[in-house]
Amino acid sequence: MTDLDVPSGRPAAVPTPEPGDARLHRLSLNQKTIDRWNVAEAVAGCAAAGVPAIGLWREPVRAYGLRASAKLVAEAGLRVSSLCRGGFLTSPDPDAWRNALDDNRRAIDEAAELGAACLVLVVGGLPPGSRDLPAARARVAESLDLLVPYAVERNVRLALEPMHPLYTADRGVLATLGEALDLAERFPSSAVGVVVDSFHTWWDPQLPAQLTRAGERIAGVQLADWITPLPPDALLSRGMLGDGHIDLRGFVRLTDAAGYTGDIEVEIFNADVWAADGAQTLATVCRRWTEHVI
Amino acid sequence: MTDLDVPSGRPAAVPTPEPGDARLHRLSLNQKTIDRWNVAEAVAGCAAAGVPAIGLWREPVRAYGLRASAKLVAEAGLRVSSLCRGGFLTSPDPDAWRNALDDNRRAIDEAAELGAACLVLVVGGLPPGSRDLPAARARVAESLDLLVPYAVERNVRLALEPMHPLYTADRGVLATLGEALDLAERFPSSAVGVVVDSFHTWWDPQLPAQLTRAGERIAGVQLADWITPLPPDALLSRGMLGDGHIDLRGFVRLTDAAGYTGDIEVEIFNADVWAADGAQTLATVCRRWTEHVI
Repeated sequence: MTDLDVPSGRPAAVPTPEPGDARLHRLSLNQKTIDRWNVAEAVAGCAAAGVPAIGLWREPVRAYGLRASAKLVAEAGLRVSSLCRGGFLTSPDPDAWRNALDDNRRAIDEAAELGAACLVLVVGGLPPGSRDLPAARARVAESLDLLVPYAVERNVRLALEPMHPLYTADRGVLATLGEALDLAERFPSSAVGVVVDSFHTWWDPQLPAQLTRAGERIAGVQLADWITPLPPDALLSRGMLGDGHIDLRGFVRLTDAAGYTGDIEVEIFNADVWAADGAQTLATVCRRWTEHVI
Repeated sequence: MTDLDVPSGRPAAVPTPEPGDARLHRLSLNQKTIDRWNVAEAVAGCAAAGVPAIGLWREPVRAYGLRASAKLVAEAGLRVSSLCRGGFLTSPDPDAWRNALDDNRRAIDEAAELGAACLVLVVGGLPPGSRDLPAARARVAESLDLLVPYAVERNVRLALEPMHPLYTADRGVLATLGEALDLAERFPSSAVGVVVDSFHTWWDPQLPAQLTRAGERIAGVQLADWITPLPPDALLSRGMLGDGHIDLRGFVRLTDAAGYTGDIEVEIFNADVWAADGAQTLATVCRRWTEHVI
């Protein structure tokens, strides 16, 4: 292991925590942070680095096999902090919508099999050609009415993810935590929670108040930094912890104060991070975690 | 004039309105939309196209001369819907902050000379190296306490502009209309209003309620569309009216319902728009205005 951080290349300010370091006890690697790793590599990487939890994605889980993934994760003693992701529920077209609901039911089944703490829902953007934001938001509510009973039967908690307004048009029409809570509160907290990502929510002047309101609805916490200039591809614009402008420690303290005690995922979509060596990236994540988060 | 729209190149769906067309009576060209035009060209362009108002920027006004600009605009019979822009008030450094305040006082003087309906304030992002968003927001409030009396004496209305959360880190820490109103309401409505830009605020689930709350505080309205994929330079990511996802007509109706009766600026920062011929761009703006706004 070098003593250089990845991907920023600056000298590491703190030593890499050893596996077993108690400071890592709530850290979870969202596997999208190291996009090149398959499930087996991600599980082995977490075990080697002493990271006790993992956030899984459906596509690599499918590629490795659902049952095999569940077995591997369980044998490694890793907690599954979330399964990413269901959602994309905004189509007004009956067939497309029915297909989306069916796909979400499969995602719920997968989350149950994996024992995931929640299934993250990225609710979807405006349908093609539509400028009707209220209608898209209403379609999400209508979808939840149908999905929640199915999830409750399987003991899977759904987690609505408010997305940065950067993505309102094309990824997620829920733009604030307050709006996600308005929707979630129509259901029991055990059935529908929220996942709060620093990248998506850090700018919101209502964030402290809405986190307090959320309380036990917080089903997951994710971290990435906001970097400037924003990388050219908006979908890959998240920064390594400490490379940007977010007070990540303050953010996590707010979630602590709201009563959240679960795992905290690091989830970074970034071309430079994805190009780096996986083990080095995970070492950087662990270092930055001790430097900027806890 | 061709019958092709600029910059999208698609055939125009409606004819270009003639000068004198009553539908243009609230349209204002923010001169940044045609960045290549100096003040004289912009004034002549508006007169030729029958656009009755203009939003001016300080830099081209300075280049043409403040007094000469004021005279030219007045002689052309154009209303000045805004002067852009003051702000950048978040520095914790005493000298830098004092300089910023002095610059804002000059901007107030310029707005008075030009007879602008308001001086737009882009309040500034996080200071370099800072992750303290509440402190930056507090610095804006502190700045207003000093600037408002100066503006009131000169009969210049300040207009706080909530910026898209895309720009919270580096341009404007006021991210929502609600937050801008919290700040504005500490002063008389005639002294401090808000300017509401479709690009910056369209995603906000609180927008209808906050526009109603704003009422007579609405000092200006600006339009640009949200296009996807977002152009690589975040500062030049605004789209021509009708090229994107915003329900511009619905947006303007909300400002109408809130009681706003003033000019509506089209303000587009976009490399393709800037590369196009100015007169063609303005013709496109006028066409798209009749097609998508009124």
